[in-house]
Amino acid sequence: MDLLSVHLDKTIDIPLYEQLYEFIKQEIVQERLPYGQKLPSKRKLANHLEVSQNTVETAFEQLLAEGYITSQPRKGFYVLAHGDLEFVEHATKKEISKVAEDTAILFDFSPNKIDTEVFPFSAWRKLNRQVIDETNHDLLLLGEAQGDKELREAIAHYVYHARGIDCDPDTIVVGAGIEVLMQQLLSLLSRSTIFGIEDPGYQLMMKLITHFGFLGRALDMNEEGVSIEAIRLLEPDYIYVTPSNHFPYGTVTSINRRNQLLQWANEAESRYIIEDDYDSEFRYTGKTIPPMKKMDFNDRVIYLGSFSKSLIPSLRISYMILPKSLLEQYRDRLTFHHSTVSRIDQHVLAHFIQEGYFEKHLNRMRKIYRKKFEFVNQLFDPYTPSIQLLGEQSGLHVVCEVRNGLTEKEILRSAEQEGIKIYPISYYASKNAVFPYPQFVIGFAGIAEERLEEAVQHIIKILHQ
Amino acid sequence: MDLLSVHLDKTIDIPLYEQLYEFIKQEIVQERLPYGQKLPSKRKLANHLEVSQNTVETAFEQLLAEGYITSQPRKGFYVLAHGDLEFVEHATKKEISKVAEDTAILFDFSPNKIDTEVFPFSAWRKLNRQVIDETNHDLLLLGEAQGDKELREAIAHYVYHARGIDCDPDTIVVGAGIEVLMQQLLSLLSRSTIFGIEDPGYQLMMKLITHFGFLGRALDMNEEGVSIEAIRLLEPDYIYVTPSNHFPYGTVTSINRRNQLLQWANEAESRYIIEDDYDSEFRYTGKTIPPMKKMDFNDRVIYLGSFSKSLIPSLRISYMILPKSLLEQYRDRLTFHHSTVSRIDQHVLAHFIQEGYFEKHLNRMRKIYRKKFEFVNQLFDPYTPSIQLLGEQSGLHVVCEVRNGLTEKEILRSAEQEGIKIYPISYYASKNAVFPYPQFVIGFAGIAEERLEEAVQHIIKILHQ
Repeated sequence: MDLLSVHLDKTIDIPLYEQLYEFIKQEIVQERLPYGQKLPSKRKLANHLEVSQNTVETAFEQLLAEGYITSQPRKGFYVLAHGDLEFVEHATKKEISKVAEDTAILFDFSPNKIDTEVFPFSAWRKLNRQVIDETNHDLLLLGEAQGDKELREAIAHYVYHARGIDCDPDTIVVGAGIEVLMQQLLSLLSRSTIFGIEDPGYQLMMKLITHFGFLGRALDMNEEGVSIEAIRLLEPDYIYVTPSNHFPYGTVTSINRRNQLLQWANEAESRYIIEDDYDSEFRYTGKTIPPMKKMDFNDRVIYLGSFSKSLIPSLRISYMILPKSLLEQYRDRLTFHHSTVSRIDQHVLAHFIQEGYFEKHLNRMRKIYRKKFEFVNQLFDPYTPSIQLLGEQSGLHVVCEVRNGLTEKEILRSAEQEGIKIYPISYYASKNAVFPYPQFVIGFAGIAEERLEEAVQHIIKILHQ
Repeated sequence: MDLLSVHLDKTIDIPLYEQLYEFIKQEIVQERLPYGQKLPSKRKLANHLEVSQNTVETAFEQLLAEGYITSQPRKGFYVLAHGDLEFVEHATKKEISKVAEDTAILFDFSPNKIDTEVFPFSAWRKLNRQVIDETNHDLLLLGEAQGDKELREAIAHYVYHARGIDCDPDTIVVGAGIEVLMQQLLSLLSRSTIFGIEDPGYQLMMKLITHFGFLGRALDMNEEGVSIEAIRLLEPDYIYVTPSNHFPYGTVTSINRRNQLLQWANEAESRYIIEDDYDSEFRYTGKTIPPMKKMDFNDRVIYLGSFSKSLIPSLRISYMILPKSLLEQYRDRLTFHHSTVSRIDQHVLAHFIQEGYFEKHLNRMRKIYRKKFEFVNQLFDPYTPSIQLLGEQSGLHVVCEVRNGLTEKEILRSAEQEGIKIYPISYYASKNAVFPYPQFVIGFAGIAEERLEEAVQHIIKILHQ
């Protein structure tokens, strides 16, 4: 039979068993060894091929494991596979579009960027060195689903001292970004839950909510914060708000409005306020604005915080503080869930907070951003009121309104030609929102200090044609 | 008026503006300053209190920002807030249940554990030190949503050399665990999509799928792999399988069955095979088993891989290789999505793979696990057939069947008393699955070599009463 005709080459680098395995496999695939055919015994084949019985056995075991042959006790080995195995029709090789790469951009004023120049690399490196240590074997295994206790305690300590929130570390959930935490939260809710979202506001959240099959409604803003009339009219169950620093205008929700929102939430068990305490660390006049969670005596506020702006976006660590009712659901129902953040990173961050590096870093960044903020304002000042900066003295971006007759489209076209990325307000607003003049969100944090003047002059040139 | 009666204490550590702010705020909250009341002018108040006008201005600005007062141009400041602001009803302070902590466990045979003794801490530390470097500022900002190119290329290189899969790095999506990637995939699918899952199998996936509102159907297993008859009968759109190393038995899906599954998927555009190439690195006889993705010429296989077992679970890095049709949907529809893995970790892992550490680590771990596997088998050997180990020579656990009349419940009760955690097969199977004898999944990887004998003797004592 064919099988005895195999030639094994002892001079090449491929193990003999593998040569034999490959030969038999090809014989089966090409139907020279048909289904049901009995193979020679291991002893016989070994003798014939002048190899050890062990070699034949290893080859047979691999064929057995991959399901090409079967073993019948006290009878021997039989071909199990049918032929034409590797003849599954080949589709024409499809072209895969490449992951998009940014074309030549001179300056990107994305509000998601931060100043990376003064990140405390050496402290971060030192803490990594300490945590990645032979004595920390345990850190290699899975940790707590809500995030490790050390980090949750450090976060509780931080939100108490920086934001006045007195929370139990056990109500904190750590996750790889606000989007991940929101997805976990959404997965606990009935799909008939209606969301209200500030308009303009954080539109990515609207996309996320609608992507997951929920109804999202745009809530008008006025000078006191999100419109309570809009909430009464549109009847959302959950509202997503940024009360201490509205995105993108920086508006602070008034104390009256905060009370109205809390009263609204208190009226029904199904109502919750999602407070995204976005950029609250960066306020350049007076004290920081206290969060609504601080006034939340009836446990109706889901508090979202992130280290993206305050530390680095690429770390992917955010957290939420859950009201008790939702926390219980989270634990009961997300039992398949593991933490989404590396434990080494969790412990490095916990030390970074505990050992005072984070506070120091925040104070330093606040000064740098304030300086940039003031410089940007100063550069735009001569062009007032035809180019007008809006909003509060806070955050890592300004909103610029253009009142000289240029349209959003015209401005974006010249910006593109100049290699300048600025972000139109329409990107952050619903289709219904009306703006008397074109507005642009201009993130200044990511532009190096020494190039800030040049960068802003590019915008001014574009806007002041 | 009351406001002029404030006493500011220059000897204490609280800034004067903050004392003034706090005083006025309390006056408003306690309704001594009613809604609409005009405040004295800044100049007048400053004179009266013998402080600088700047102090009064800062206090007023904070009150303005928080919405307690309003400013009327050329008229002055008025109380905006209504009283009873901080009188939102206090709910009785609710008790928050603690995050569960493991009680005294002597040995935990969880199949999720790994051997942490020989993790290359020094290489990992070195690579972290190299990546966390002042020259890598860019790594602090957000990266690509699918994961950074460097890591995707390193993974493509690895799956080609270790698993024979020839894939474009642009089809790879990196994420913080298989669950995160599965959630992203699920979010692209119509909720009428039906899933078939191996039974017994990875039950957490069934929980995840049903939690997100999809129908999941249990597919019987036989010696050739998942039952094709069950698939034809239950008509799933997606099947979730572990063809190279079935969980928990280690069964290898036969080449015939693989072809049948691929043929089934080729019959309709809506059908996909999710191949979880779980633990494929750890096989102790012959060559490793090639994945189905290698035979997937029509792009019907979604391949899932993870570094949880092969490196460390707490790193939270997994990946999926998406067919082109799904990749396009992923990019078009998940536009709100950022990567869920720290970029520093991504680059450390990319270097770890590129510089050969990963291969070396895998080879080392394979030897260690093989030795443990053989030792566990040897310890159980004298008790055959009343205690029988099932399955293939692979993976980080064995399945042990108890044929001496003891019930699952009895065994679990004694195990608990002894502080031994073993995992009954019922935990990984649907309610319909029938087992003639109690079976337990026993993960040996996480038990230190020098304590393995003691640990297994505890199990044997429990099973051999």
